[in-house]
Order: sequence, then structure tokens, then C-alpha cells
Amino acid sequence: MPLDPARVVSRLEELRSLTGSDDGAQRVAWTETWATARAWLAQTLSDLPLVVERDQAGNDWYTLRGDSERAVLLGGHMDSVPNGGWLDGCLNVLAAAEVLRRIAEEGTPPVTVRLVDWADEEGARFGRSLFGSSAAGGSMSDQDELRSLVDRDGVSLPDAIGAFDVDLDHALEARSQLENAAAYLELHIEQGPVLESLELPLGAVLGTFGVERWRITWTGQAAHAGSTPMDQRRDALAGAAKLALAIRDIARETGDGAVCTSGGVVCRPGIVTSVVETAEQLLDQRHLDAGKLASMLARAQELSHGFAEEERIDVDWERIWNIQPILFDETLIGFADEAIRDVAGGSHRLPSGPLHDAAEVARAGVPTVMLFVQSLRGLSHTKLEDTKPEHLELSVAALDGLASKTIAHVAAP
Amino acid sequence: MPLDPARVVSRLEELRSLTGSDDGAQRVAWTETWATARAWLAQTLSDLPLVVERDQAGNDWYTLRGDSERAVLLGGHMDSVPNGGWLDGCLNVLAAAEVLRRIAEEGTPPVTVRLVDWADEEGARFGRSLFGSSAAGGSMSDQDELRSLVDRDGVSLPDAIGAFDVDLDHALEARSQLENAAAYLELHIEQGPVLESLELPLGAVLGTFGVERWRITWTGQAAHAGSTPMDQRRDALAGAAKLALAIRDIARETGDGAVCTSGGVVCRPGIVTSVVETAEQLLDQRHLDAGKLASMLARAQELSHGFAEEERIDVDWERIWNIQPILFDETLIGFADEAIRDVAGGSHRLPSGPLHDAAEVARAGVPTVMLFVQSLRGLSHTKLEDTKPEHLELSVAALDGLASKTIAHVAAP
Repeated sequence: MPLDPARVVSRLEELRSLTGSDDGAQRVAWTETWATARAWLAQTLSDLPLVVERDQAGNDWYTLRGDSERAVLLGGHMDSVPNGGWLDGCLNVLAAAEVLRRIAEEGTPPVTVRLVDWADEEGARFGRSLFGSSAAGGSMSDQDELRSLVDRDGVSLPDAIGAFDVDLDHALEARSQLENAAAYLELHIEQGPVLESLELPLGAVLGTFGVERWRITWTGQAAHAGSTPMDQRRDALAGAAKLALAIRDIARETGDGAVCTSGGVVCRPGIVTSVVETAEQLLDQRHLDAGKLASMLARAQELSHGFAEEERIDVDWERIWNIQPILFDETLIGFADEAIRDVAGGSHRLPSGPLHDAAEVARAGVPTVMLFVQSLRGLSHTKLEDTKPEHLELSVAALDGLASKTIAHVAAP
Repeated sequence: MPLDPARVVSRLEELRSLTGSDDGAQRVAWTETWATARAWLAQTLSDLPLVVERDQAGNDWYTLRGDSERAVLLGGHMDSVPNGGWLDGCLNVLAAAEVLRRIAEEGTPPVTVRLVDWADEEGARFGRSLFGSSAAGGSMSDQDELRSLVDRDGVSLPDAIGAFDVDLDHALEARSQLENAAAYLELHIEQGPVLESLELPLGAVLGTFGVERWRITWTGQAAHAGSTPMDQRRDALAGAAKLALAIRDIARETGDGAVCTSGGVVCRPGIVTSVVETAEQLLDQRHLDAGKLASMLARAQELSHGFAEEERIDVDWERIWNIQPILFDETLIGFADEAIRDVAGGSHRLPSGPLHDAAEVARAGVPTVMLFVQSLRGLSHTKLEDTKPEHLELSVAALDGLASKTIAHVAAP
């Protein structure tokens, strides 16, 4: 049976009816609803000659044995955030399932082909995203912190994952799943505005941004708004304001997709009658090039010290988190471009702002690429998340073309 | 007996021991501690031939009858904020009491001289400052709102003031207290940094600032910090940042003591991974000249619309509160200057940032002036509030000199 992209759209609608509420997707990892979604997925694939297994990190694998043990992986995640969208993560899985079905129905492929449903990509309950893929990829090292996490209802992480037979102390054994992995492919909605602004349905993803995420605390002096002359103030908000504006220039000057964001400033005492004494500012900087990311950070810090001096205030930088850029495989990016042009006429290469399971697989050394399909209004993590049905169908076709090229490449002597 | 400024300092220390805690002054209006302080005050004046009465707004009056019914008033407030300073309000009263004592011990004055202890200047429990003086001055018009106020322990305002025999529906009858008022004099700590920076102990106050206080809401679009290119953002924080910096220029360009303050910005969603969608900004602008205050406001609004256009965001202005400038009496300001120079050698005229009971009296048409004494580090509303003892003594002497000149002026045919 040939590929049936429309079936993927029907399956997504079926999944939404089965597990969604009026407020959106509720397939939160480690819950009953998620288990239901996974069981439903298994049932849709039950007619195919697949070996089905769950690894020690809770990832579900559907394996179609090929002539070779070398494997091409197609992945996604059935889990969602609460009140999420109908596509994020499950489009990836259901499109991959359709591709797997098409391949299986053609007989034994030259290489092994595997579908993986990663466990807890979103980290919605415990704040720890990319759980299953970081274990399989081997980067997971925070088991001790994870052991003590508790969700908002008081359920501990070990108990929650234990109900699915996952144990923190054995999760890394999932690494064996990637032993024969020769390539990893993942389709995802863009969750951003670029493809829509270019009026393109599909794009090939270059990699995931490196991120520098910092908390900047400006400290001045609280003072009465009425009785303190302007030249006697040490206003912490002035420092935060200057930096909030300067980071746009830093991104612009750095170019190549650089982004810098100040997500907020918290002012204290924060009352209308006082000069701001402390301003706690959030900063998020991203780039695909590690050197440029480092220079963006250095520039922001340098400018901040100048602002602190001008305003006679103090500034303190505290790193919240960072991750290096993870570039995808050049050959696979080329295949992705071709596959997209084959079905859509035009293609575009772009970076991924958000992190994905694909990043964990790439950093484990497996050649990786992602495809993006256009998101309407860039919305995600909301029931308003959407993509045109014709674009969803094109994305399934593109994933299929990408899979074919990749399989042929991996199979070649 | 001659004026004894040192006695005022002793009395202040006595009051602090009697009614203060380790965390500072606790003489919150309408509480037992406040009642204790007022009773103590009455007892310190009980040897003088004064008529003592409480008006319908809870203000306590100590009247020394003179040859004429025309009255010179000296005022202050025994109430404090919780965890407040040892001088704010009670220096005013105790200095005035010492001046009243000096005058009384010299016989019958040519005009009537009255000390007033205003009820609830601070508004600490119910948020409504200048309670007693606004009733006596006649500006109080918010009885209906006040009727429904409740403090943090659930006690209603009517019940709290009722325990002191004050009734909202009769408070304005206190207006009769100002019928014969020919002048009002008030000493206060500066609660600001100006006199300390000029190394002067005392200053003559020109009046209280007009205030324009607004809430400005900037509205952009939340967007993912990673996946949204810089040129596709509508960042509400950028508007708030630009305005926070521009208002300093507005104050500088307007001059004559103009002050503009952004006391805070509240950003939503306020997470590190999102562009700011709404930024709610506080703005406080003050000037002694009503026309300049209005033009400062107009300029800020004009600039904000430009910023909103540049950033492709919306801006909305909502007035929180305003009050017109209240200028003190030129003749009395002159007397204050002279009295200060007589005791301290040099004087300085300055505006008052905070509002005071004196403003309510002035707007009722009574010629008014205030004296400021230097505040160490400009601190107030904290147990750290302080003034050098020698400056406190100078301030009592200056108030006495001012009172003499004013009495002579009022008594003149």
C-alpha cells in the first residue's frame, strides 16, 4: 500500500478525540492519559511485523528488521504539555509510523528501520525535559537531583516513573538502543514564525541553538520618588532598561540567526513612590555557532559593566543554564532539502530555537536531521497550535522521501 | 522659663522608650500604642493653661488663648508607620509643644496659639493618609470608599475610628477648627538627601509637589525566545525600557526640581524563554509648578506613543492618582528663612517631595510654611531614621523664631 499522508491527519484527529479535552492535549508523561495514547499507538501498528519493546528509560521502540543490523531511526514523542496542542510530538510519531508502514508493506528493507516514541520529552510534571532521549543518548547525569523532584500534587519522580517500570539507576542502560543507529530523522512542527513568513510549508533544520541563560541582578538604592533629586539616584531599573535595549543590537550585529531575549525584570521594592533598588533581569542568548554565542555573552557582560558604572549601581551575573550548539549532519540536511523540494518545490534551511530529542541523539554521535513543517502563527504549547492539513500531508511525504534517501545511503557499501 | 531645645530631644527619647519596640516606632493610628502616646503627650502639657479638645476627625488640639481669637497653629502627628522612625511626626509635635510652653510661660500672647496633633497622617492601617488634616481642611470627600476599608486583620475603618469616637459622617465638622486660623507652621525631618548633601541643618519649604501618578501598560506579543527572529518580535519590555530612560531626560530638561520615577515594571509571562507580552509600568512625576507638571506628563505620553510605534506594540495610560502643587505662603517662607539664618547662619529653600498635613491646611486657605531639618542618609519610615541631636536642637530654636515672627505679624493691626 502506498504512503497515505491523509491517514496521518485522521490518526492525529483520532488521538485528539481519544485523549484531548476542551483545553487541549493532556498526554502528560507518566500519566494514565499518556499510557492510553501509547497503547493506542501500539494498537495502530499491531498488524505490522514489528518487534515492540520498552527500554530502561521508558522509550518505546517499534523495530522492522532489515537485511542489515544498521538502523535508521525515526522519532518523536507522544507526551505533551497540559493544555497543549494536537501536533507537537505526536505528528512526529504518527508521520514516522506511516513511513514505517509504507516500508514494512514493501517487504524487508536493506537496513533496520525503527520508530521511537521518546519518554517525557516535555518534562511537564517534574521540569526535566528530554528525559528518555537524554538517557538513551547517554547525557543524563542528574539522577540525584531527579530523585528528589516532586510534582505539584506531591508525587515523587521515582514513584511516577516507577509505575512505568522505569528506575533512575537503570535508565542509562537505554544507551544500548543506539548501538546500531546509523541515522536519526525527526519531523516536527516549527513552533516559530519563519516558514509562515516565507510562505513555505517545509524547512530543513540545521541544528539546535546553543543557549546561554543568565540571571542579572542590578543593585542601586531605594529612595523616595518625591524627595530625591534626579542626580542623587542610583536606579537599578536604568541598568536593566539599558541592557534590555542593547541586547537587540548585539543580536543584530552578530547576525546569522542570533537571538537575545530579556524575558522579564523583577523590580523591588516595586512601589510607585520609590526608586528601584534591585532589578532582577532574565537573559536568554542563542546561536548555532559556539564562538559567536560566547562573544554575544561577553559583549552583554561588558556592556552591563559600563551601564553599572554610568548609573553608579552594581551588577551581578549568575548563570541559570547553558547548552552548546548541536549541528545536524550535512549529508542528511542535503537529503532533507531534496526531499522537501521533491514534494513542495522550494526549501529553506533554518535553526531550531527549541531543543528536541534529536539534539540528544546528535550529541551521542548519531547523524541526525530534522524537518520542520510550518506552524500557523508560530503557536505551540496551546490548544491553538495548528498547521494546514495540506502542509501536514506534505510533511509526511517529505519525511518519507528523506527516509528513502537515508536508507539508501546507509545501505550503500 | 526660656526655650529648652534639649528637653525636646529627651522627650523624643522618652517617647521612644515608652512606645517603641526593637523594630522601631509602633504608634500606628487608631491603636492602643497610639492612644498611649497621645495620653503621654497630654500629660507633658498638663501643667500649662491650655484648653484641650478632640475634634470630630480625631485631631487633638491644645489651645493657649491670646488677646485675639486669631490663631497661629503649630502642628504635627503622633502617629507613625509600623517599624517606623523616632522623629517622623512626633518631632513636629514635641518641638511645637516646647514652643507653646515657652510662649505660655511668658503670659497671654497677643494672638491665640494652638498645637494640633493630626489624627492618622500616615494612613498605615487603611491606606488613607492625611485623614485628620483632610477633614479639618475640608478636602475629605471619600467617606464612602473609607466606609468599606478593612485592615490586614479584618478590622473595618469605621470600627477602628469609632473606638476613638470618630464617625465618618461627622468628620468634616472638624472644619470649624480652622475658622480663626491665621497661619500654620510645621517642623519636619526632611526625609530626603538634599540638606545633608548641602551640609545644612535646616531649610525653608516652598510647598508640596504636584504629583501625576500613572500606570502604563505596554502590550506586545509573547513569542518563543529561541524560534522567533529578532525582526519578528513585538516586545513590550522594549517600550517600558525606553520610557524608563526617557523620563530622566524629561526631568532634566524641565528643571526646577522636577522629578520623574519609574518605580517598577511587571512583565508577563515573565519567563526566560519568552519575549515579554505585557509590561505594566509605574510612573510618578512631580513638580512645584502645575504647568510644568502638565507638560512633563504630556511629553512622557507623547514619547510613549513614539516608542509604541517603533516597537509595533500598544501603550495604554491609566491615571492612578494626582494632586496639584500646593505652594506655601511667601511671607512665612521669608520668616522661615530668617529664623533659620538666625540660629544656623545659612538657609536653603526646597520643595517637599512627600505630602504633609501642612498641604491640607494650605489648600484650605490658611497661610502655611514648613521647616525641614536634615535627615541622615535621607532615611525615614524605618528605625534607622535619624538626625544629629545638635540639628534637632537647632530646629526647635528655628521653629521658635518662626513662631515669634509669625505671631508678631498676625498680631499687627
